[in-house]
Amino acid sequence: MTAQSNHNQRIVLASRPVGAPTQSNFRLESANKPTPAQGEILLRTIYLSLDPYMRGRMSDAKSYADPVAVNDVMVGGTVCQVEQSNNDNFQVGEWVLAYTGWQQYAVSDGEGLLKLGTEPTNPSYALGIMGMPGFTAYMGLLDIGAPKSGDTIVVAAATGPVGATVGQIGKLKGCRVIGIAGSEEKCRYAKEELGFDECINHKAADFVEQLNTACDKGIDVYYENVGGKVFDTVLPLLNTGARVPICGLVSQYNATSLPDGPDRLSMLMGTLLQKRIKMQGFIIFDDYAHRYNEFATAMTAWLKEDKIKYKEQVVEGLENTVEAFAGLLEGKNFGKLVIKVNQPL
Amino acid sequence: MTAQSNHNQRIVLASRPVGAPTQSNFRLESANKPTPAQGEILLRTIYLSLDPYMRGRMSDAKSYADPVAVNDVMVGGTVCQVEQSNNDNFQVGEWVLAYTGWQQYAVSDGEGLLKLGTEPTNPSYALGIMGMPGFTAYMGLLDIGAPKSGDTIVVAAATGPVGATVGQIGKLKGCRVIGIAGSEEKCRYAKEELGFDECINHKAADFVEQLNTACDKGIDVYYENVGGKVFDTVLPLLNTGARVPICGLVSQYNATSLPDGPDRLSMLMGTLLQKRIKMQGFIIFDDYAHRYNEFATAMTAWLKEDKIKYKEQVVEGLENTVEAFAGLLEGKNFGKLVIKVNQPL
Repeated sequence: MTAQSNHNQRIVLASRPVGAPTQSNFRLESANKPTPAQGEILLRTIYLSLDPYMRGRMSDAKSYADPVAVNDVMVGGTVCQVEQSNNDNFQVGEWVLAYTGWQQYAVSDGEGLLKLGTEPTNPSYALGIMGMPGFTAYMGLLDIGAPKSGDTIVVAAATGPVGATVGQIGKLKGCRVIGIAGSEEKCRYAKEELGFDECINHKAADFVEQLNTACDKGIDVYYENVGGKVFDTVLPLLNTGARVPICGLVSQYNATSLPDGPDRLSMLMGTLLQKRIKMQGFIIFDDYAHRYNEFATAMTAWLKEDKIKYKEQVVEGLENTVEAFAGLLEGKNFGKLVIKVNQPL
Repeated sequence: MTAQSNHNQRIVLASRPVGAPTQSNFRLESANKPTPAQGEILLRTIYLSLDPYMRGRMSDAKSYADPVAVNDVMVGGTVCQVEQSNNDNFQVGEWVLAYTGWQQYAVSDGEGLLKLGTEPTNPSYALGIMGMPGFTAYMGLLDIGAPKSGDTIVVAAATGPVGATVGQIGKLKGCRVIGIAGSEEKCRYAKEELGFDECINHKAADFVEQLNTACDKGIDVYYENVGGKVFDTVLPLLNTGARVPICGLVSQYNATSLPDGPDRLSMLMGTLLQKRIKMQGFIIFDDYAHRYNEFATAMTAWLKEDKIKYKEQVVEGLENTVEAFAGLLEGKNFGKLVIKVNQPL
């Protein structure tokens, strides 16, 4: 797969996954490299972002966005370089943030592209800490979570791009931050590198006891990105007036049926009432697009001053995308997961 | 029970109800009429308010307020007249809003009493439309529900003191208001007298279909005061960005165990996320005491201009309190339920 190839490798949705997605749900195809018409540009994908929300696009259940059609290329955020240009607004070699999906090349008329310059320091950051995950962490925590100094914040997927950012911003705001992650290694990283006060392994046999002990003053903000068992454990620990921004429910995305069990919904509603709790779902660009500049200014400064740390896991080659994505839903990645699709020009 | 009696009839909690409260959970006692000491006043209860939250006080489950101890007088809001005064701030015959509970008389040092004047037009309104239920309706709808003109509002217990006020304020704000109530008579009243656009009988066999039809543009604000089956029906109808103020869960107050069933909690969380919905519990005086004057000013004007209608159901005699309260939890009352405990002086 070199710049001179005339092929466009791409991954299409072959069938809708039931439960965890597998290789058989996708098809790696080789198409002709597209040719930009007058006014268009050819985008060369350098980085493809993999994010949990993509599981929703593979299903035809009603959601906040339309599903990907079977036999269509899977969607996804990308960082691309302009390889050919028939558009005066774009120069060859220029970097852009795009949404060209799981493929090596795409054409665009330039609409909706965010320019990243000709020599960006960390172009892939536009898919992570400076992009959707970072922005989601920032607005969900600060606008809905509204943390006050001294509050206890709990966040799961603590070393993922959202959780790691939530926790570090929480520390900057003077809060006590408790992370939850899926391995001892991740927990160590959250405490030693990210500065979390505690981080608890949800696979530990005494997870519930550990979380209760760590949250001895209750929980003021629970940043919800996983759902399931973790939420059940958090619910009775929420303090009066707690806030629960809901940005994702990763533990539920592969669920094929709703588990039986006692009526936890009534428990939740009773808790919301008695403790005057606010829970609020949000979709980052729908709700907060008008505040992106505020976020970008703050985050740029924090990164520059090394107040926020950011970890990426880069997987080489489009052909490894399906395996990497399946692992993402199981918590196998460590840091923001991106696929390196092509070498830069 | 005349003004000259030396007895104080009172109702104490004899045992904690399991499920629906019955007569055997209470004891009607006759004590001596209390004598006010220097600086104290004797309060003669004229009206006792009965409200669903009292069911919570009968249980020792952890809640936002301490339970009533067994053998103590049941708590409750009252409108009283001063029958004797050893306190220069209070004159005999003056009316006050108090919290003296299920009894004919009580003494007070005056602290926490709200003066209602010497000849109030509708003294019992202080327990309803001008008091806790009216204030709850107003702040929950306007502050958390934040209705915009053209929104669809759904409220259950539509002829109760909270629901009726929510719906009428919703109409004043230019919204489409759908009520839910427990009889055809109540539904007629909600539409013909209160001006609701629709009101649906939740005991109708085709309740779900009727609510779906009435909410053909979805639901923007669901004012939650009942929980249970009604919430299940409302959940899939909530629009993107909907708001759900939670002021009560009456249908659950007598529940002795959580029903088994599919995991509706996961459904709720998924809905909150995908539709970016805000749910928020609130306890009226904890959250909004500082805005009581704003409410009182608005409501006084609305009542004067006949823009808001208010219905009371007055039951005569303290001895009928338990039966009336049990009926309240089953939806048997029609309008704000108060007990007339004594005749005015």
